[in-house]
Amino acid sequence: MTDTATLSAFEATRRVRDGRLSATALTEALLDRIAAREPEVRAFVHLDAALALRQAAAVDRAVKAGRAGPLAGFAFGVKDVLDTADQPSQYGSPVWAGHRPRSDAACVALARRAGAVILGKTVTTEFATRHPGPTRNPHNPAHTPGGSSSGSAAGAGAGFFHAGFGTQTAGSIIRPAAYCGAVGFKPSFGTLHRAGMKVMAESLDTIGVIAGSVGDAALVMTGLTGGDYGTPEERRPGRAPRIGLCWGPAAEQAAPETREAIERVAAAAARAGAQVEAVELPAAVLAGYEAHALVMNGESAEALAWELDHAAAQLTEGLRERLDWGSRQGRAALLDARAAFTVARAAFAGVMAGFDAILTPSAPGEAPEGLGWTGDPAFNSLWTLLHVPCVTVPVGTGPRGLPLGAQVVAGFGQDREALAWAEWVRAAST
Amino acid sequence: MTDTATLSAFEATRRVRDGRLSATALTEALLDRIAAREPEVRAFVHLDAALALRQAAAVDRAVKAGRAGPLAGFAFGVKDVLDTADQPSQYGSPVWAGHRPRSDAACVALARRAGAVILGKTVTTEFATRHPGPTRNPHNPAHTPGGSSSGSAAGAGAGFFHAGFGTQTAGSIIRPAAYCGAVGFKPSFGTLHRAGMKVMAESLDTIGVIAGSVGDAALVMTGLTGGDYGTPEERRPGRAPRIGLCWGPAAEQAAPETREAIERVAAAAARAGAQVEAVELPAAVLAGYEAHALVMNGESAEALAWELDHAAAQLTEGLRERLDWGSRQGRAALLDARAAFTVARAAFAGVMAGFDAILTPSAPGEAPEGLGWTGDPAFNSLWTLLHVPCVTVPVGTGPRGLPLGAQVVAGFGQDREALAWAEWVRAAST
Repeated sequence: MTDTATLSAFEATRRVRDGRLSATALTEALLDRIAAREPEVRAFVHLDAALALRQAAAVDRAVKAGRAGPLAGFAFGVKDVLDTADQPSQYGSPVWAGHRPRSDAACVALARRAGAVILGKTVTTEFATRHPGPTRNPHNPAHTPGGSSSGSAAGAGAGFFHAGFGTQTAGSIIRPAAYCGAVGFKPSFGTLHRAGMKVMAESLDTIGVIAGSVGDAALVMTGLTGGDYGTPEERRPGRAPRIGLCWGPAAEQAAPETREAIERVAAAAARAGAQVEAVELPAAVLAGYEAHALVMNGESAEALAWELDHAAAQLTEGLRERLDWGSRQGRAALLDARAAFTVARAAFAGVMAGFDAILTPSAPGEAPEGLGWTGDPAFNSLWTLLHVPCVTVPVGTGPRGLPLGAQVVAGFGQDREALAWAEWVRAAST
Repeated sequence: MTDTATLSAFEATRRVRDGRLSATALTEALLDRIAAREPEVRAFVHLDAALALRQAAAVDRAVKAGRAGPLAGFAFGVKDVLDTADQPSQYGSPVWAGHRPRSDAACVALARRAGAVILGKTVTTEFATRHPGPTRNPHNPAHTPGGSSSGSAAGAGAGFFHAGFGTQTAGSIIRPAAYCGAVGFKPSFGTLHRAGMKVMAESLDTIGVIAGSVGDAALVMTGLTGGDYGTPEERRPGRAPRIGLCWGPAAEQAAPETREAIERVAAAAARAGAQVEAVELPAAVLAGYEAHALVMNGESAEALAWELDHAAAQLTEGLRERLDWGSRQGRAALLDARAAFTVARAAFAGVMAGFDAILTPSAPGEAPEGLGWTGDPAFNSLWTLLHVPCVTVPVGTGPRGLPLGAQVVAGFGQDREALAWAEWVRAAST
């Protein structure tokens, strides 16, 4: 059974589509793996094995009827800020305890249409903000898995499913994926429709995936959208990239192991033929970074207006304080901050004219110890507000034996290229 | 009672805040007015007078306790693509019959926080697309009120409430407002948070308001957002505007009465001191216009993925066909179309460097006869995809005695200016 559970998504779905492996057997293998480790990892807020197997049986019938979708048998964990019609959707908050939406979120419906099995709902922090859930890092249960896509990252890192849906407002896909030794992909803003998502900051929130490999991330994006995300592990670019090495505005927060890892990756890329050049970000880009917290908290305060007015006591104090801070900045400041984003995006497009990809840390360091703090998105919020595609790939471990990630960023709309260069960088560094 | 019901929102809320008029008396007056005409107009899909009066009583208690919000007693009709916790939210589709969300949409919660009374839910076409509801034009029941914000426009035109929430993906605020003799305001994209809206096209959908006057539209926007939308009727600009007269890409669809009305308004503005100059739109802007249908239908097909897969038989054939067409264009075409939007926005910013405002038709002509067709958004979709603020103001009637509108458009983020110049143009032309 272990063999089936550890197949790449690419190989597993190929076998299911070919009729060499049933979605039922694949799902059973993953459920066995989950049963063994979930009591420790706690990736799921809702897991119903019988429901997963009924979905798998339906996929098997579709395959037999000649209607195998591109993601036939592909197993998903769905971050619990995304609605599911057949499972509770509680957004990481007691305000929404027991909530059962009538419909699936768009990305969940598209996953099912492509033949995927929704194994369960994965733990999110409170409304995808800071207050953590019970999930532990699969590489060391004394450490956080990161957040806010805690369960999707931990589950992907533990091999519970082929991909977890995540969402990112500051650093909620890339950071936990890096902490859990997984591949995280935040596509260009607007790639996966947010219908049925509990959206916080409309200008920032981006749905993406956390998977076991860059190839699997590309596979699922192609299967969900019909777009061309390439096969980064099979067809590699015919040349080496021009890489901009960018420590970014949070450079001083990079731990020594992060600095060492990114320098090691850059050197390996250069040895493999890449042109690597240091990038200083223009002031307009940095001004966008400075505006991030205001947009995030100001817009989130609007998104949670009903909760604030009807269930404030069920929000954590920290969240209430941040929302209150966001509101107090006022409307004109919010509009100025969003205008700074627009200017930053245009300026960053200029930066990217000289590079195929940016190489930058995925997080300050290894996953912090303890479950109370999901880590700092200092290396993520800039790329989120720039709306550009980001990929984190595992690049070894730090002093405590926990995974480190390197983040590869491309220009807006260059999602296929971001994945291709991320895999190129990863392969060059190992 | 009639006097109270016909007070402007500005005057009515001032009296409620001052304690000279109770929200209860105001709501009762409006309910009386509704009772007299709603059987003919059919603006509401849900109306519960007792519930409205309970809300009004709560507002009165707040006023007495010294906690009068800026919109104390302000009466809203809420387009039924926006969630309400205390009223059904059915999105104009039998798929969602009887649906009761747990929470209010963000804009509804913000309205209540400001002291507004949510009178009821107003008729929308099917998922804010084409298939019409039963609403009739308050100026002639044999004619459509337009759509998709049919009930909010008809109700505003009939004086049922101080403002109706509307949403616009192509022309769903401006066109019905013009048809119903009301003022429609589509703010800059992103102004009112879409949390709790049944979003179709994420790149386009914009929440706005339909009111009885430009001043009331400004009042409600200020009350909802805390921003500065001015008092266009009280404090007028100290100079005349530079106006770009723009027939736009649909020029040939302007009926003779529309052509005459816009030329009359332009001439009146010139007499009042405006510099009026014809504007030809650059090719990049027109390319955005050509891409609108693809983005609208392509994104809507993703938004309705669950409905398509679980309740297709309950969608109208026309909607299914348009969604299918949108899907079939493919992912690369969708991304190209969205890229065309981005280029168009930049090009339009260049156009607006020379003008304070654009003057253009709100709709091809008077409201079409019959209820089967809500009219053509040919004069609206361009401004929607450009994300710029638009205001329609009533400028007389056509050959059948139905209202005509003139549309005033400003640059992105110039929402206060759009309202100010719209009121200036309206006043100059009457």
